Amino acid sequence: NVMAGIEVLRRIAAEGTPPVTVRVVDWADEEGARFGRSLFGSSACSGFFDPDAIKGYTDKDGITLEQATARVGVDIHRAREAGAQLRNARAYLELHIEQGPVLESMGLPLGAVLGTFGVERHAIHFTGQAAHSGSTPMDKRRDALGGVSKLHLAIREIARRHGGVGTVGRVETKPGIVTSVVAHARMTLDQRHLDADALAAMYREAQEASHRIAQEEGIEVEWEFTWRIEPILFHPDLIEMCDQAIVETAGVSHRLPSGPLHDAAEVARAGIPTIMMFAQSLYGISHNKIEDTKEEHIAMSVVALDKLATKAMRWVAERP
Amino acid sequence: NVMAGIEVLRRIAAEGTPPVTVRVVDWADEEGARFGRSLFGSSACSGFFDPDAIKGYTDKDGITLEQATARVGVDIHRAREAGAQLRNARAYLELHIEQGPVLESMGLPLGAVLGTFGVERHAIHFTGQAAHSGSTPMDKRRDALGGVSKLHLAIREIARRHGGVGTVGRVETKPGIVTSVVAHARMTLDQRHLDADALAAMYREAQEASHRIAQEEGIEVEWEFTWRIEPILFHPDLIEMCDQAIVETAGVSHRLPSGPLHDAAEVARAGIPTIMMFAQSLYGISHNKIEDTKEEHIAMSVVALDKLATKAMRWVAERP
Repeated sequence: NVMAGIEVLRRIAAEGTPPVTVRVVDWADEEGARFGRSLFGSSACSGFFDPDAIKGYTDKDGITLEQATARVGVDIHRAREAGAQLRNARAYLELHIEQGPVLESMGLPLGAVLGTFGVERHAIHFTGQAAHSGSTPMDKRRDALGGVSKLHLAIREIARRHGGVGTVGRVETKPGIVTSVVAHARMTLDQRHLDADALAAMYREAQEASHRIAQEEGIEVEWEFTWRIEPILFHPDLIEMCDQAIVETAGVSHRLPSGPLHDAAEVARAGIPTIMMFAQSLYGISHNKIEDTKEEHIAMSVVALDKLATKAMRWVAERP
Repeated sequence: NVMAGIEVLRRIAAEGTPPVTVRVVDWADEEGARFGRSLFGSSACSGFFDPDAIKGYTDKDGITLEQATARVGVDIHRAREAGAQLRNARAYLELHIEQGPVLESMGLPLGAVLGTFGVERHAIHFTGQAAHSGSTPMDKRRDALGGVSKLHLAIREIARRHGGVGTVGRVETKPGIVTSVVAHARMTLDQRHLDADALAAMYREAQEASHRIAQEEGIEVEWEFTWRIEPILFHPDLIEMCDQAIVETAGVSHRLPSGPLHDAAEVARAGIPTIMMFAQSLYGISHNKIEDTKEEHIAMSVVALDKLATKAMRWVAERP
């Protein structure tokens, strides 16, 4: 996608002096796989990166982010100075693969992104009573796993009702043996929505469901906060332009939210009008060996990004 | 409970020559905690112990059962010769704590045991598709955990409907991270019932439910056999005598199945008329630091066992 930006720059440069300054940025460490902290470059630039908050982050060899960046001449305590580069920015455009199945399922090559989902991330603990799987009648059990099973199904239903997503990615059971009713069960929860009120309602309803279920099962429930971020909305004018550029290129467009976070979200948080364009992901899969996008869709995405750049330059130049 | 047997022997001996020979047995390694193979002594005596089947069983220091028994002068390859001791046995009585909550919940000190539950033990694997928790809409997911949650609740319902028990004691999720839909989930299943047909129905219904759920969720299901044993019923005449002995001692009795296996089940499998009496377990808990039984209930259990022994001796002496 950086290469797509360079192609657009090349076209603009060939046409002479553009109406506004155009720059390409190649953000450092968007993925964060090495230190478990994504969006390093863009968050430094947006000012949301906090060097003190990542003090404990090390890679698998015990090297800290501070040490690793120092080796390549970057002082993380001065990283936020990169924010100066955004000072006069009037718009930010980003092309990315969807990483999900929506465009593929609709048979569409490209989509205009409305913003990035807000996220509520928690761990939920249910506590019942270990009991012999043979000697304890069903009506005498306090099965902690009953909390997990019922809440997992409730969370999926809550997400569907609100048009968001809700995921239970991990379940742990203790004592975790075939001959005992589960005494303690832990589940992770990740809820996302583009609308802050809807996300708050999803979170509230999940909590209510957990307490109702705990009462039904005669078990206890406890919530452990992990992480949260608010939804970040892209600029309505740029969404409209992105939609048009896609229609002009592919004949049809679709507006969709982004479930994953992106560098664009950091830039939008810094107050810069922002838009992303998605190209279809094959199989709806990413972060996996089979991650792929059709070459024809990649070509279309560069053309559409180019059209979007022209519209955005005009828009910026004409804005007061 | 061996001490209770000795008290009964003492009483019988004090009254002179009994109508039949009475012996007390203190079975070796009922619990099997060291090698993971319970009922060592009684299964050797019943003939169901197979020295070749336990070749791989070691304790946490890597010592085999064969080595450990050799150190105390026992050759496990000759262990089944103990069966000679059962050759003329006409009845077997065993006192045990309930290890469950039934008698306590009914406010009863003692109960007559109908037999030991048959057991169906399996692991069930559901396979879906890992997918990003943000980018994958709810209707595009193949959530392997959906199989576990729905089947767990179905298994509890099946057990309730048939009057048996059904336990999911362990759940494992892969990749098992907060940001991914579960691709692969494994659950354990332990179903028990005193009636072989009811147990077979519970097992069949659980399998049917798993296939229906897999279809609903768009995931795959596979069953892995772990272990099974048929229900073992105690002798109806001895159950009746045990009930009477309890009524005479405590005023009221209750008949209940045993969820856990016991040495008595091995003796019953060997064709010896068998009965067990249960004493109430406090909190319905065993194999735990808080396992306990009231002293007054222990005293009553010895008196009731003594009465049962008298009835059983008369019954054996009068039988053709």
